[in-house]
Amino acid sequence: MTTADTLSEATSDASLARSVARSQEIEEQIKTNPEKFRVLTGDRPTGNLHLGHYLGTLRNRVRLQDQGVDTWVIIADYQVITDRDGVGPIRERVLSLVTDYLACGIDPEKSTIFTHSAIPALNQLMLPFLSLVTESELHRNPTVKAELEATGGRAMSGLLLTYPVHQAADILFCDANLVPAGKDQLPHIEQTRLIANRFDKRYGRGELSHPVFRRPDALLSQVQNLLGTDGQKMSKSRGNTIELGMTADQTAKMLKRAVTDSERLITFDPVNRPEVANLLLMASEATGQAPAEIADQIGDKGAGALKALVIDAVNGMLEPIRARRTELAQDEAYLRSILAAGNEKANAQADEKLAQVRQAMKMVY
Amino acid sequence: MTTADTLSEATSDASLARSVARSQEIEEQIKTNPEKFRVLTGDRPTGNLHLGHYLGTLRNRVRLQDQGVDTWVIIADYQVITDRDGVGPIRERVLSLVTDYLACGIDPEKSTIFTHSAIPALNQLMLPFLSLVTESELHRNPTVKAELEATGGRAMSGLLLTYPVHQAADILFCDANLVPAGKDQLPHIEQTRLIANRFDKRYGRGELSHPVFRRPDALLSQVQNLLGTDGQKMSKSRGNTIELGMTADQTAKMLKRAVTDSERLITFDPVNRPEVANLLLMASEATGQAPAEIADQIGDKGAGALKALVIDAVNGMLEPIRARRTELAQDEAYLRSILAAGNEKANAQADEKLAQVRQAMKMVY
Repeated sequence: MTTADTLSEATSDASLARSVARSQEIEEQIKTNPEKFRVLTGDRPTGNLHLGHYLGTLRNRVRLQDQGVDTWVIIADYQVITDRDGVGPIRERVLSLVTDYLACGIDPEKSTIFTHSAIPALNQLMLPFLSLVTESELHRNPTVKAELEATGGRAMSGLLLTYPVHQAADILFCDANLVPAGKDQLPHIEQTRLIANRFDKRYGRGELSHPVFRRPDALLSQVQNLLGTDGQKMSKSRGNTIELGMTADQTAKMLKRAVTDSERLITFDPVNRPEVANLLLMASEATGQAPAEIADQIGDKGAGALKALVIDAVNGMLEPIRARRTELAQDEAYLRSILAAGNEKANAQADEKLAQVRQAMKMVY
Repeated sequence: MTTADTLSEATSDASLARSVARSQEIEEQIKTNPEKFRVLTGDRPTGNLHLGHYLGTLRNRVRLQDQGVDTWVIIADYQVITDRDGVGPIRERVLSLVTDYLACGIDPEKSTIFTHSAIPALNQLMLPFLSLVTESELHRNPTVKAELEATGGRAMSGLLLTYPVHQAADILFCDANLVPAGKDQLPHIEQTRLIANRFDKRYGRGELSHPVFRRPDALLSQVQNLLGTDGQKMSKSRGNTIELGMTADQTAKMLKRAVTDSERLITFDPVNRPEVANLLLMASEATGQAPAEIADQIGDKGAGALKALVIDAVNGMLEPIRARRTELAQDEAYLRSILAAGNEKANAQADEKLAQVRQAMKMVY
């Protein structure tokens, strides 16, 4: 199979099924041997985190961390400028992300939070890695294509074209062997594995007993994709999300405006009643109760009762997070110290990995 | 004018004439104010340096250095893998380059010799810089196209596609405002100026009084392009060069094999007698005497006499270089100490420049 095939096949049904099975295997292994895994995950600091992020990724990171998996969280500040002309209020957004992470339960004693721009040796890996991919591979990456389309006719920047290579550097520099991912991100992880393999084949090893880079696996998300309050994809720009920084009142107001239907009997029917099902899923994610069970509980009390229940459930779940968030937001020095400590640890790891890379490439003079 | 135009126009006649005039202006300024300039120049460590390198670039670097221009010489080890699968005997080649530099008169007290792979903060500049160029600009770079053709059907690597951006980082990180260049390299310098300008426009400044990056000028070479002993382009792979590491005997043997014509009367006629003219130019470059004058001196004594004169002239010029080369080659620890000192200085400069970049981009947390 050619590489192009490998990359585009990464999202095929058969490949997806393999990834699902592999993720289940890994989840089992985590239960007994969490110390065998290191996770790399992270976010672009392009806006405030919302309920979708919390339920979709943040909560899962905290779970992995608390199961004993060494978790590295990158704030991908250079990725902000892949598809836009300015950095925006980058400092505020980065500190807001750190606040969200800590408020949601990322524990800086167990996890490492760091930024792209502060880790030169990580970024240097771009150079050898770019030698290992061809231009056409860069082009055929389906997520690069999709993200280009999302920019609405903007010319493709060199940084957008090469960002899967940069992402490979994020994963490989820190010896991560596990990357929580949605289906869409599978081609990136496949590209990362290809780069790790090719590096080993082409440039060899520092120590002969093992390759310089570990080969990462995807850990597919088991979480339902929640919609926004308008029944569309959750996104800040649509104003259909509940940001983690919102108050209980703001949250209630957002959820009261949520689109539903006119039928009073509440049922869990994702195909025919997607908006109602979405609210039930939100309540389910927040309480742990099954959505159909929640629907039965409400019976024919209608959308108003459903919304009241969702508001209670979501606010109940977010309350301790909000309290901690408010407290943290008042202590910028502490937030910065967390980032400084994470960057220091990431720099030590990156310097060490770069030394291995230079040794393998015989660039030690 | 669009950017694509700007880049392809960089080699047009009018643009070339402007570059020639500007280079002459700069040469005048160097005579009185050498401290206003910093030069960035360098080589890929892909083979041994030869007479063409010495006369074409090395001697010019030494001249600039000795006129008081702060000269930075990069050994572009990552550029070795833009268009080939392995690094080759990279360590030997890098140390051989350092030997050649020092033997030819690069003075490590005045000039800074360093390698790409040892300067992470320089390499990090690739990230913001890649955001400032579009994919089509990368594509349309004429030297990238030419180098791709030279690889004979090899797929374009990501590193070859982006190497003008990496080269911009080499120039801009160290505040170089002068880059000795042949006509072919003018588009690279234009690309570098574009990146410096765009950075200033898009990301702004740390200190408002001046941009983060200086805008470099090309210093066009005034040296004749010498041919190899077979009358073709001088190149190691053709075996038509005199390497700086050769002995006087090897040099004499190479020059005796040089192609000439059967006419006994030696005249300087580059159009009709290119091979004879090339030998006269070699002698001229080595002695400082005009080629026509040397031809007159030989008169009708024929090619044998011409070659004997060229051998004397070239060996005379190379003799002190060879002696110093032999001595240096025996002291690897010294060579490595020179590189270590250069890398240390380049790292300090790169760290400082990256700090300015992060400040301008507001990526200081």
